[in-house]
Amino acid sequence: MNENETIAAIATPPGEGGVGIVRISGSKVWKIADQIFQGLEKPSQKEGGTFIFGKILGAEGEEIDEGLCLIFRAPRSYTGDDTVEIQGHGGSVVLRKILRRALEAGARMAEPGEFTKRAFLNGKMDLVQAEAVADLIHARSDRAAAAALEQLEGSLSGRFNRLYDQCVDIAADLETTLDFIEDELPDEVFPTLGKKLDGSFQTLEDLLLTWDEGRLLREGARVVIMGRPNAGKSTLFNALLGHDRAIVTSIAGTTRDVIEEGIVLGGIPLRILDTAGLREAECEIEREGIRRAREHAGAADIAVYLIDCSRPFSVEDAEHLEKLKPEQTVVVLNKNDVRSPAFNFQLSMFQPLEASLGLGDGLDDIRSALAARLGGFSHAPAHAVISERHRNLLELARVELENARGQLTGLEDEGVVLAAEHLRSALEFLGQVTGRIYHNELLDNVFSRFCIGK
Amino acid sequence: MNENETIAAIATPPGEGGVGIVRISGSKVWKIADQIFQGLEKPSQKEGGTFIFGKILGAEGEEIDEGLCLIFRAPRSYTGDDTVEIQGHGGSVVLRKILRRALEAGARMAEPGEFTKRAFLNGKMDLVQAEAVADLIHARSDRAAAAALEQLEGSLSGRFNRLYDQCVDIAADLETTLDFIEDELPDEVFPTLGKKLDGSFQTLEDLLLTWDEGRLLREGARVVIMGRPNAGKSTLFNALLGHDRAIVTSIAGTTRDVIEEGIVLGGIPLRILDTAGLREAECEIEREGIRRAREHAGAADIAVYLIDCSRPFSVEDAEHLEKLKPEQTVVVLNKNDVRSPAFNFQLSMFQPLEASLGLGDGLDDIRSALAARLGGFSHAPAHAVISERHRNLLELARVELENARGQLTGLEDEGVVLAAEHLRSALEFLGQVTGRIYHNELLDNVFSRFCIGK
Repeated sequence: MNENETIAAIATPPGEGGVGIVRISGSKVWKIADQIFQGLEKPSQKEGGTFIFGKILGAEGEEIDEGLCLIFRAPRSYTGDDTVEIQGHGGSVVLRKILRRALEAGARMAEPGEFTKRAFLNGKMDLVQAEAVADLIHARSDRAAAAALEQLEGSLSGRFNRLYDQCVDIAADLETTLDFIEDELPDEVFPTLGKKLDGSFQTLEDLLLTWDEGRLLREGARVVIMGRPNAGKSTLFNALLGHDRAIVTSIAGTTRDVIEEGIVLGGIPLRILDTAGLREAECEIEREGIRRAREHAGAADIAVYLIDCSRPFSVEDAEHLEKLKPEQTVVVLNKNDVRSPAFNFQLSMFQPLEASLGLGDGLDDIRSALAARLGGFSHAPAHAVISERHRNLLELARVELENARGQLTGLEDEGVVLAAEHLRSALEFLGQVTGRIYHNELLDNVFSRFCIGK
Repeated sequence: MNENETIAAIATPPGEGGVGIVRISGSKVWKIADQIFQGLEKPSQKEGGTFIFGKILGAEGEEIDEGLCLIFRAPRSYTGDDTVEIQGHGGSVVLRKILRRALEAGARMAEPGEFTKRAFLNGKMDLVQAEAVADLIHARSDRAAAAALEQLEGSLSGRFNRLYDQCVDIAADLETTLDFIEDELPDEVFPTLGKKLDGSFQTLEDLLLTWDEGRLLREGARVVIMGRPNAGKSTLFNALLGHDRAIVTSIAGTTRDVIEEGIVLGGIPLRILDTAGLREAECEIEREGIRRAREHAGAADIAVYLIDCSRPFSVEDAEHLEKLKPEQTVVVLNKNDVRSPAFNFQLSMFQPLEASLGLGDGLDDIRSALAARLGGFSHAPAHAVISERHRNLLELARVELENARGQLTGLEDEGVVLAAEHLRSALEFLGQVTGRIYHNELLDNVFSRFCIGK
């Protein structure tokens, strides 16, 4: 990549809206902006922090749109480079025309996340903060947005940096011991180093503990609704969503495909999956639906298992429930208003809820049970939490720290040398978290999940 | 509506993007902006045409996002009132939080098109230009966008205004004749008036002629693909789209629902409908699909009728074709590579094309035939064209002008009085086109088709 290349992209979401923005950043930005934007003054003549009204011109000088041109002078821009934002009308055809014009005038199409990548390379933010930008954009709940913002502001980076500094400190101490002749080493050196290492371990473990919450906030918890045909699964699905998404009929086998929708419960985004009723189906399409239902149950964080209690409890239900873990399962005895006297549920480890979903009864209990199984996250204030990438690097660093700890018991010079080596490896991994140390593959990996235009 | 109310809305398209905007406009905007936006300077202290970096704050002073605040001082804003645009990260959760904060701080939610309505009420644009804003946002082709922009710049308003002025002129002349005693009237008065009226008629007719093109540009042309089962309809549909949208199998009756997608051909957006194959179906769902196919054919601008020529020509195809108009129909003999010697197509008024869609042959011919049937619009440069609303008002005005013309033959004072009355009615209708004359219902009608935030 040539860092001097000027990049351009549509920065607003696709679709129709009142306003849309094409962002252009790089060394040729003033030349391009002067060509395509015609206001009372030239963009190149204006100072940063101002904007001008004007026309956006095509290659033949014809007007494409009218709008604004915002001026950002380096380093006071998102990327840290000279930047303009051209604001036009928010339809996709118009914005694509403006973008095409910027490309004709000398910019190249930005890659996903490339504006943020430049911000990182220009030292405007570290990698953890850059990732927070994507998290903030993709946030599906207030809580997730608040956590991403904390991260963007640097609170998570601060924790990683402290861990890094602790390890640098220990590594330096270790190197120092090598300068001593063995007998001259003060007695307390190795115990002190061990304590410091234990402290780093603790910091690392504390960070790892936030992963589970981070995963729920970023990806949402997967809640799968299961049960035999006609137990009321699609009714519950629609009730949780608050609108009719799934087709509900009294015909068993109505739902074939797995339908997925998102809601937010206790600040945690949920992805709720409605599945085909579990039965021995003759129709091939329905059998495929049931196979998918089972597959989704395996990958879910929580299963809601619905039982029609207007009929006697069936062996099939018992068999399906055997495969589910009680702590991840909410069992609901539905159609309780017409409960059969012959119905008898004996699997007490599941602590079933009672509901009459057709009447709208029992929904709050189901919501509470779901929230409870999502853990206590929702009561603490939102805070920055680590991601899968952070976890992988922390796990690698932990192994190195453990190895270093193991080498330090021997008090041999050789052990100290090996311990120092493990610590350096740990630092290598920790440095990749915030991007003190980076390589192209790491950057590609981080920025590929960004949208174009950010 | 209280004109002093401050309104707020998300102005960028919904969804995820790098950047999103909350627009706030009205008398309380500085109070609100100072509360929710915290930069080095207060928004209320900044001059128009500038923007500041800062934090967007929640009700408790907690940070919601970081971004920009753009300052627009009346009348140099979109609405003509004092306005700020708060630019934050482009996720929907974050933008909703910023919007909620603006509402808590004293704004109320803007109605669809309300920013543009204020621009109209503040004299920043007339109704025809306001409508162009929505057209520009909704434009689905470059040509439609260019036509909308012409309209936004006032070229269509200019034509309406000239027509209006012509009619005002004639009305004034008519009133003058009433001041004369009959015998004193110069001979040429009524012939001159008649000529002027004819000129207005011509202007009006010329405007009406643009309607057909306008409808195609705004709504797109409806192209319905028809034929018996397995004639290759979904294959053609996918080939025109350039990707697989419809499920293609060799099983007759695969497509049940009507599937619709848009493409652009010769600058005209097309809405292409794939329909169920026409046959006597036993399945109720399929019968409903066929009923819908017939219904869509009736409302289409163009039908593409596919015939499988690997089999003898069937009576059913002949029966279906009888119901279609040749000038609106493109007949395609598909599977020409395996054409049956027994196939014999005799309905020469349809001038059928030959194709082997499975091999990708014949697609260009079909595209050309479609473009030809869309008329010669695509060769002329894009220009502003009237809308359905304009047409309705022009039709009403035409009736009044015709009546006025009828009254002018008599040379009686009474006739002149009646003609003047008809002209005033015509002016009433013409005035509603650009909004010289307006009432709430008219404004509601115009702005209800806008998106919120514009």
